[in-house]
Amino acid sequence: MEQSTAKKPIRCKAAVSKVAGQPLEMVEVDVAPPRAHEVRIRILCTSLCHTDVTFWRMKDFPAMYPSILGHEAAGVVESVGEEVVEVSPGDTVVPVFSGQCGDCPDCLSDRSNICSGLPFRFLPGMPRDGTTRFAFAGTGEPIHNFINVSSFVEYTVVDVAHLVRLGPGLMIPPDKACLLSCGVSTGVGAAWKVAAVEPGSTVAVFGLGAVGLAVAQGSKMRGAKRIIGVDLNPDKCEIGKRMGITEFINPNDTGGKAVSEVIKEMTGGGADYCFECIGSTAVTAEAFSSSRMGWGKTIVLGVASGAAAPISIPSYEILRGRSVVGSLFGGLKPKTDVPLLAQKYLDEELELDEFVTHEMGFDDINGAFDLLTQGKCLRCIIWMDGASAKENGNGGVNVKPKQNGTLV
Amino acid sequence: MEQSTAKKPIRCKAAVSKVAGQPLEMVEVDVAPPRAHEVRIRILCTSLCHTDVTFWRMKDFPAMYPSILGHEAAGVVESVGEEVVEVSPGDTVVPVFSGQCGDCPDCLSDRSNICSGLPFRFLPGMPRDGTTRFAFAGTGEPIHNFINVSSFVEYTVVDVAHLVRLGPGLMIPPDKACLLSCGVSTGVGAAWKVAAVEPGSTVAVFGLGAVGLAVAQGSKMRGAKRIIGVDLNPDKCEIGKRMGITEFINPNDTGGKAVSEVIKEMTGGGADYCFECIGSTAVTAEAFSSSRMGWGKTIVLGVASGAAAPISIPSYEILRGRSVVGSLFGGLKPKTDVPLLAQKYLDEELELDEFVTHEMGFDDINGAFDLLTQGKCLRCIIWMDGASAKENGNGGVNVKPKQNGTLV
Ligand SMILES: NC(=O)c1ccc[n+]([C@@H]2O[C@H](COP(=O)([O-])OP(=O)(O)OC[C@H]3O[C@@H](n4cnc5c(N)ncnc54)[C@H](O)[C@@H]3O)[C@@H](O)[C@H]2O)c1
Ligand SMILES: NC(=O)c1ccc[n+]([C@@H]2O[C@H](COP(=O)([O-])OP(=O)(O)OC[C@H]3O[C@@H](n4cnc5c(N)ncnc54)[C@H](O)[C@@H]3O)[C@@H](O)[C@H]2O)c1
Ligand SMILES: [Zn+2]
Ligand SMILES: [Zn+2]
Ligand SMILES: [Zn+2]
Ligand SMILES: [Zn+2]
Repeated sequence: MEQSTAKKPIRCKAAVSKVAGQPLEMVEVDVAPPRAHEVRIRILCTSLCHTDVTFWRMKDFPAMYPSILGHEAAGVVESVGEEVVEVSPGDTVVPVFSGQCGDCPDCLSDRSNICSGLPFRFLPGMPRDGTTRFAFAGTGEPIHNFINVSSFVEYTVVDVAHLVRLGPGLMIPPDKACLLSCGVSTGVGAAWKVAAVEPGSTVAVFGLGAVGLAVAQGSKMRGAKRIIGVDLNPDKCEIGKRMGITEFINPNDTGGKAVSEVIKEMTGGGADYCFECIGSTAVTAEAFSSSRMGWGKTIVLGVASGAAAPISIPSYEILRGRSVVGSLFGGLKPKTDVPLLAQKYLDEELELDEFVTHEMGFDDINGAFDLLTQGKCLRCIIWMDGASAKENGNGGVNVKPKQNGTLV
Repeated sequence: MEQSTAKKPIRCKAAVSKVAGQPLEMVEVDVAPPRAHEVRIRILCTSLCHTDVTFWRMKDFPAMYPSILGHEAAGVVESVGEEVVEVSPGDTVVPVFSGQCGDCPDCLSDRSNICSGLPFRFLPGMPRDGTTRFAFAGTGEPIHNFINVSSFVEYTVVDVAHLVRLGPGLMIPPDKACLLSCGVSTGVGAAWKVAAVEPGSTVAVFGLGAVGLAVAQGSKMRGAKRIIGVDLNPDKCEIGKRMGITEFINPNDTGGKAVSEVIKEMTGGGADYCFECIGSTAVTAEAFSSSRMGWGKTIVLGVASGAAAPISIPSYEILRGRSVVGSLFGGLKPKTDVPLLAQKYLDEELELDEFVTHEMGFDDINGAFDLLTQGKCLRCIIWMDGASAKENGNGGVNVKPKQNGTLV
């Protein structure tokens, strides 16, 4: 049945960002059929990651308008372009902004997850040819693609290198699959792969959103003894503690002391691993200062606003054996590692349920921006089939979206 | 015989730095006897490392005047203070600016070489009490100690945590031992321990002084395939190639192209490991830009001028899997690793002879500053017993200094 629309444009609903920082507009768009190596998918649900907010607010390049934001989602394959053999219509898939072509030196190496075959760039369209598959219905006026996914639309086109298939053995609810599409994978992966947190170690997490709390969870799974959470929002203390944080620092409550000073005192010299999960170069500097000399590692995950955003590190301090490392998607290879995380969820080794704090229908998407920017949610799941959320209420993890392939 | 001076001050010759950037002055000084945990040593030979030059030029803290600079040296124990059991009068020793107390969490861990028992600080004197053992002869006016060593003097006092003993099984010439006291160990160690250069990899070395060429040598020993040397001094091409560099870039000869662009073109994307061996934060940024996305590592060894000297890193580039790490003394633990390097020299696995390009007597020490700042030498060995150098000429590696314990 999904095949009936193949090779034709699909007219459907999208939430388009037309002006920096302004509410998205629900409009009709035409979604072109997938070209070679591309896959058109029906989005089941999407959520808002802070990276969407950062680019939505940004006025200059790499922000581009009009554009369809969104990159954390789960969907079902509607049709495939030429050369695509990895997925078929009806498959459950998770799109990922970071690609994995499978053939380049990076994809073939254990040391890298930054595909150089289809390197991550800020393009107005698809990774292979830069053209977009979106246009305003009727006028044909193009709408830009956002970081290889664009999920704030009922149907999107994604390069197969940016898709992870969840086979029938990995039947996890779509909202949980959606979490693995970006934020949670990034945080868990960063603790496991990038930092390789060691048992007994002390971790400091700056920013307790979904990414930061996933770092906390990944660190806990790796045996960290102390996990110090830092957030300006006092509400993050309680939820943070439920999710693995052992101590909480509100930078506004330190009596004027730098957070790094507080952490150095608490830990007798600094944390072993400091994660920046906010997107502030000033906080990165503070995270670095909180890291222990000798082996302290600062892991940068936050996406700062502005392409130039320089991180400043005092050279005499890095000479004392400290290091700074960054990563996209937590150092994970999407096709290899997302299924492993889904399995860990099924095995009850990875907690995902707590990350879904809110749900809503697609028409209410601007409300999700309010929740995230006001610090009220971790992840708000936006169901494209608005009815599902309403039918299932806030705990709707077992929702069965219409035409759902493998997710039950 | 050495013991006869024990417990008494020794009056001897020192080259004192009185004013930033001005020639050192040969004066008589009184060197107090060692206190508890301290050792007084007779310097056999010393050499000039660029760190001496950087601090000699610096007007503000941490530079302090008057002071006895110098920290690359080899010597013989003259007398020991209370509690010292590790060395005895007559032992051949190598002082190291970076300490190893043996008891702190860092000394006990494989992950760190930055002793936290006696942390590296800029003190006017000894690491345990901050007081100096040097005074101008007669007047008693104190002279500052420099980074725990102060070797531009016939006798110095060093904390035992900053001394490496070379036992009778490690009879290497004093000028070779001197090289292991700082620059060469730093470079070789950085390639081995900090970067852990992998076989077949591509390395870029910024700055082809002793430190940079030791990095080249360490990288070659670890199986690096390409070692790209970068230096403004065209003379470094030839000596560099003799010492392991496979390609040479002079930043003045790139037709205005950034060195990082040239390296990216040569390597198809960037080097696996980029070492900054100059002490310029601008060059560190260029080294970082020359590093490959996915896994490229920038290793900072250079000591920049000015304590604040911030390294600036574009956050979007570090997110692409790059990292920056710094190290003192090449990540080596002095007491453990310097003897291993001495053994490698004896086994002809480590080339040291080429690093000694000049030799002179102590009275000519200002000439060594000229040679290094003009880029004419790698290491100029300054023999405290001036006669030795003259007697033995430039190849004087088998010199037998008077009263020499184990060095032949
Ligand atoms: N590297 C990657 O691959 C990757 C992937 C996903 C997200 N990200 C980035 O990770 C960051 C976090 O994303 P998220 O979705 O978890 O965001 P979020 O908005 O849910 O959480 C951010 C948290 O930081 C806190 N915060 C903001 N400023 C602060 C400050 N100065 N001090 C302390 N706390 C502060 C907020 O209160 C909030 O709790 C963003 O920058 C996002 O772009 C990166
Ligand atoms: N981290 C440590 O433990 C440690 C130990 C020893 C030395 N150091 C530092 O390592 C650095 C090198 O020391 P060295 O004794 O080998 O110095 P050196 O003076 O022998 O060599 C420096 C080289 O850099 C070149 N150079 C200078 N500016 C340059 C530029 N802009 N571009 C390209 N080349 C340039 C010079 O021509 C010279 O060949 C210094 O900063 C020193 O303080 C650090
Ligand atoms: Zn994201
Ligand atoms: Zn690839
Ligand atoms: Zn040195
Ligand atoms: Zn120690």
